[in-house]
Amino acid sequence: MSGSGTRTGLVITAHPGDFVWRAGGAIALHAKRGYRMKIVCLSYGERGESQFAWKKAGATLADVKAGRRDEAERAAAILGAEIEFFDCGDYPLKPNEEMLDRTIDIFRELNPAFVLTHALEDPYNFDHPTAAHFAQEARVIAQAMGHKPEKYTSYAAAPVFLFEPHQPEQCNFKPQVILNIDAVWETKYRAFQVLAAQKHLWEYYTRVALNRGIQGGRNTGKPMTYGEAYMRLFPEALETLG
Amino acid sequence: MSGSGTRTGLVITAHPGDFVWRAGGAIALHAKRGYRMKIVCLSYGERGESQFAWKKAGATLADVKAGRRDEAERAAAILGAEIEFFDCGDYPLKPNEEMLDRTIDIFRELNPAFVLTHALEDPYNFDHPTAAHFAQEARVIAQAMGHKPEKYTSYAAAPVFLFEPHQPEQCNFKPQVILNIDAVWETKYRAFQVLAAQKHLWEYYTRVALNRGIQGGRNTGKPMTYGEAYMRLFPEALETLG
Amino acid sequence: MSGSGTRTGLVITAHPGDFVWRAGGAIALHAKRGYRMKIVCLSYGERGESQFAWKKAGATLADVKAGRRDEAERAAAILGAEIEFFDCGDYPLKPNEEMLDRTIDIFRELNPAFVLTHALEDPYNFDHPTAAHFAQEARVIAQAMGHKPEKYTSYAAAPVFLFEPHQPEQCNFKPQVILNIDAVWETKYRAFQVLAAQKHLWEYYTRVALNRGIQGGRNTGKPMTYGEAYMRLFPEALETLG
Amino acid sequence: MSGSGTRTGLVITAHPGDFVWRAGGAIALHAKRGYRMKIVCLSYGERGESQFAWKKAGATLADVKAGRRDEAERAAAILGAEIEFFDCGDYPLKPNEEMLDRTIDIFRELNPAFVLTHALEDPYNFDHPTAAHFAQEARVIAQAMGHKPEKYTSYAAAPVFLFEPHQPEQCNFKPQVILNIDAVWETKYRAFQVLAAQKHLWEYYTRVALNRGIQGGRNTGKPMTYGEAYMRLFPEALETLG
Amino acid sequence: MSGSGTRTGLVITAHPGDFVWRAGGAIALHAKRGYRMKIVCLSYGERGESQFAWKKAGATLADVKAGRRDEAERAAAILGAEIEFFDCGDYPLKPNEEMLDRTIDIFRELNPAFVLTHALEDPYNFDHPTAAHFAQEARVIAQAMGHKPEKYTSYAAAPVFLFEPHQPEQCNFKPQVILNIDAVWETKYRAFQVLAAQKHLWEYYTRVALNRGIQGGRNTGKPMTYGEAYMRLFPEALETLG
Amino acid sequence: MSGSGTRTGLVITAHPGDFVWRAGGAIALHAKRGYRMKIVCLSYGERGESQFAWKKAGATLADVKAGRRDEAERAAAILGAEIEFFDCGDYPLKPNEEMLDRTIDIFRELNPAFVLTHALEDPYNFDHPTAAHFAQEARVIAQAMGHKPEKYTSYAAAPVFLFEPHQPEQCNFKPQVILNIDAVWETKYRAFQVLAAQKHLWEYYTRVALNRGIQGGRNTGKPMTYGEAYMRLFPEALETLG
Repeated sequence: MSGSGTRTGLVITAHPGDFVWRAGGAIALHAKRGYRMKIVCLSYGERGESQFAWKKAGATLADVKAGRRDEAERAAAILGAEIEFFDCGDYPLKPNEEMLDRTIDIFRELNPAFVLTHALEDPYNFDHPTAAHFAQEARVIAQAMGHKPEKYTSYAAAPVFLFEPHQPEQCNFKPQVILNIDAVWETKYRAFQVLAAQKHLWEYYTRVALNRGIQGGRNTGKPMTYGEAYMRLFPEALETLG
Repeated sequence: MSGSGTRTGLVITAHPGDFVWRAGGAIALHAKRGYRMKIVCLSYGERGESQFAWKKAGATLADVKAGRRDEAERAAAILGAEIEFFDCGDYPLKPNEEMLDRTIDIFRELNPAFVLTHALEDPYNFDHPTAAHFAQEARVIAQAMGHKPEKYTSYAAAPVFLFEPHQPEQCNFKPQVILNIDAVWETKYRAFQVLAAQKHLWEYYTRVALNRGIQGGRNTGKPMTYGEAYMRLFPEALETLG
Repeated sequence: MSGSGTRTGLVITAHPGDFVWRAGGAIALHAKRGYRMKIVCLSYGERGESQFAWKKAGATLADVKAGRRDEAERAAAILGAEIEFFDCGDYPLKPNEEMLDRTIDIFRELNPAFVLTHALEDPYNFDHPTAAHFAQEARVIAQAMGHKPEKYTSYAAAPVFLFEPHQPEQCNFKPQVILNIDAVWETKYRAFQVLAAQKHLWEYYTRVALNRGIQGGRNTGKPMTYGEAYMRLFPEALETLG
Repeated sequence: MSGSGTRTGLVITAHPGDFVWRAGGAIALHAKRGYRMKIVCLSYGERGESQFAWKKAGATLADVKAGRRDEAERAAAILGAEIEFFDCGDYPLKPNEEMLDRTIDIFRELNPAFVLTHALEDPYNFDHPTAAHFAQEARVIAQAMGHKPEKYTSYAAAPVFLFEPHQPEQCNFKPQVILNIDAVWETKYRAFQVLAAQKHLWEYYTRVALNRGIQGGRNTGKPMTYGEAYMRLFPEALETLG
Repeated sequence: MSGSGTRTGLVITAHPGDFVWRAGGAIALHAKRGYRMKIVCLSYGERGESQFAWKKAGATLADVKAGRRDEAERAAAILGAEIEFFDCGDYPLKPNEEMLDRTIDIFRELNPAFVLTHALEDPYNFDHPTAAHFAQEARVIAQAMGHKPEKYTSYAAAPVFLFEPHQPEQCNFKPQVILNIDAVWETKYRAFQVLAAQKHLWEYYTRVALNRGIQGGRNTGKPMTYGEAYMRLFPEALETLG
Repeated sequence: MSGSGTRTGLVITAHPGDFVWRAGGAIALHAKRGYRMKIVCLSYGERGESQFAWKKAGATLADVKAGRRDEAERAAAILGAEIEFFDCGDYPLKPNEEMLDRTIDIFRELNPAFVLTHALEDPYNFDHPTAAHFAQEARVIAQAMGHKPEKYTSYAAAPVFLFEPHQPEQCNFKPQVILNIDAVWETKYRAFQVLAAQKHLWEYYTRVALNRGIQGGRNTGKPMTYGEAYMRLFPEALETLG
């Protein structure tokens, strides 16, 4: 929870597309409910996730980065989130100590009610586990009173949810939570449309959402149409099971 | 939820002690909150879990069973639960089709908000996974409209929580939920005291509860003193992550 | 390979729908290529997989079974397969020794080039692992010269492919093979349409096929539109890796 | 330890060959050191493990069983062990309650210092996990004072070692113990030679022993030539780590 | 074994508290038996494990490090061990090449009979797996004749035991060894008392020791009161199973 | 496939011996069939894999490296492969960015039909997983159009096969493919003989090949004498199962 009493959520991603495809529903849902949602986007995905941009004749790295940044900003705005870019380079992702330090500050400033990041394994994309590890490490250090002790304020390490990778089984991803995103599906789909070059993924991730929705309903008896799947990194403490 | 609108919880255990040591907190907590809590106790643990009773000179099987039944009834009463015995024999546990049928009826009658049973593996005690499998199978069949179709009423398969075995790591038990049982710890401990012959376990399970409590606090920032650990068998569907 | 020199494939399923949703592409594809495809359907799914049939006023078990049998026969015909029913009962599935014996004979008669069956785990449906275990056991015994030695003929235990369950991650299902079923998709979809009562699954499994297709393409660089995912139960012996 | 103060070891196997290929070194080694070694051989492997015997013209089940029994007795004698046959049938193995009861008595009579049995999984041979589960169950029930209480005597559940299956990785077998069998290799190899029909396995299991021996040396710095690999089913309690 | 013929044990930890809570029993036990026990303590835990020290008004990094160093030296003295500090920084732990080189020298100098270090995973504390990996790497390189060949002497890679993390199941820690530490419990508890600021952990780890003790007894039949749990990283080579 | 239409295979290894023991059959087999086979050898194994060379009085690092390089070149020539050395240092292996960049270029130049590298885990040798990760990362980046976009040409990420480590079970290595190397066994064995100092491994790996051959035959019914085992890193896309 940030200073003002507003509840917050923090999303840490390797590349711009990730927060749209994988967590766009959670972002939009909590934004709609008044959460301050913040995305830390480690790279622009400029080398590895921009095949289409590079097909333009004469494309330069600066062009590609600017294009992806623009898309990411527009998608974040649609979802109702702030976004901060670290521009750490991709393929491979190279976050440095300064970026870790900045992320720790963000954790302390936001005191998020929950954190969203990548799955811990992905044999198709090593930037994803790198980003997840970076997020975990920042979260733990933010708790350490001895890190910048002069700035330390009471901070509770937030629950971490890992979002669904492109080929979940190959990443040993097993859904533990299916979030009902019916209320914001239209918003998520509008954010898809910003990613005009990846049109083939609009339908892929629509299908993922519909099938997760059916699974969500089957696991609870309460129907939902669109779902987003997450793993929990830590046990949850509950006051009731019913 | 049973007919009357009261919420319900169902506990399926192999032996009398199990529901006390492993789920006594959850039972007492929900009973206190007005849930109708029902325990299905498959055996009296008369052969395998009654070493002390057998040390009495001249002990007979009937004596031992009567003694364990009496204990189980008193413990259930303290926790605030109904108890139904199947007397299916233990070591090995031998539930039959009629018992499966009765359990399916119980599922439909109670329409429980949650189900508690044993972990799926236990190399020290094969009755435990047998009971867990029995519970799972009954729960699934209760959903099948073609089972006693004349009695079928809308029934939603409830979430299943697996309670903590005696040596959790050896059973591949990994806590996913830590339930705060501070509000009912005294009640749970009173139920321990009914199991007079297993006094050495009173302190063992008090230590388990205290250490799970500390872990529950560490995972959330909200301190608790006494905890009970559970695994979830299925993903949960959520409306919020925060 | 059966006596005539025709190559054969054997499918062993718990319920009628399974061979359509999960293996319809493989069946149709190999049938089209001249394989003799045979389905052993252990039950009619009459209790657990026929919710819609039971909603009809006055439905009896005999009606429901007849209806499911009719559907299964029509779907098998569309896919180009023979089908043999064991009527062993479902929820729970209860295959007996005589059925095991019959299945062993089928293995020996067909000497199949491959076997398709259920995944080894499924916490939502215990009939599925029961069917898979039954198939595995028959396959192994068919190899034993001491089983009906008078009828033993040279028989090589076939590779086994496990088809995709409804919620793959919850069943620890990890695709190892993605079969390109583009050539028979229309046929598979026509078989879906026989299962008129489960219309909601037509689109669910169309989405599964499309997303597996995209994954198949990503893993090989050779695009495919519709895929079916399988696990292998045994290592494959290869003459080349390239 | 049996009544006389002699230390004992108990081996529970599905078929005759198993105790020779997989545990022959451990049996001979402990026999040589004065242990009373006892083998419970659940079946003669007459259907599934006797391809060669069935190739003889006119072979009958009785012949095959007698042949395998003779071999097993000679091999056990070479290794220095007693052997008791249950003749429960193989492919599939069908141990019944009476056999379980007899095995429990054996556990109590021998009070073995260790138990050897099959690995818990084997997709090539379901008799193996059936035998392992049978052994585990008997071991646990033997501890229960309420099982034949009149015969109960103080009995400590022995450590269980699982011996190496034919294709260890496919059975999720991971060696935790490598037993140095140099002192009895010649004896083990002589027992191989009793199994004249499986000559191809003599060299297969010689190679296994040599490679496990090298691994044993590499893990400790103390060279050994021939090794036998085992998994432990339970943690060990130690008085020193050094 | 170091030059003098004394047997030795080596402990490699991330922070001062770890060797007390997790391995204090093993250290004291072997010290008592005449082993030279040496602790390599990679950091002072000054940032991440010193919340209490930072609560003192005006605390500086130097103060905190000095305080933790003093505690660690006193605790090591009570347990009977030497301690060497690397002061590599914590949260995150940053061991460098020079420290790796020094650790390799220590391995060669001590030629330890066993090595104790952290578990390989810990989602709550990344310093722990970093320390474990550092220990493993040094141990392997110490074996390489080509590393400082002029100083190479015959060195046998020692068995590695991983000590128990704070939340064992979350770290995929499964006890394989339970060490009986009854003989040194009082000493271990005195070392706890040096860590005055973490008084809440005195009782937490007393409970862990008591429950591991009961489990140790249950797995062997030989009662123990206090236990310490370990995983083995490698198979052990044995001369007997009994 | 390289520009000329020749099919290619790429092998990425940590040390010279690895490609001989673990992949020599696959290399020779595909070379024999006309594939251009290329080995990237990250280090000379000069520190960690050259115990024998260091035993020579006065051996220097330069001598040892030259000796291992000579052996590696001769072995590669026998197998029919090109070899490129990176000389990145071993124990630990230290590949740098320039080497990654060069490897990416090699991937693009060869466009290999398959890639062979180490298993993902090896607690005995950390250079092995480091090499595997390096290979995976290069393979993924080679696909990224934004990496050296001016040089990008259509490139399909090749299937990856992980070769068998020295102690496969300890590395969680589970064979998924057994390659029949009968046609080139003599060649592989001649390559063994180049590694004169590791004569004890000639027989070790001959035994591995013979036992994998028997397993290959058992899994398919088609006998083979010598096999090489591999894991697949990704699912395969198939056009047929039969």
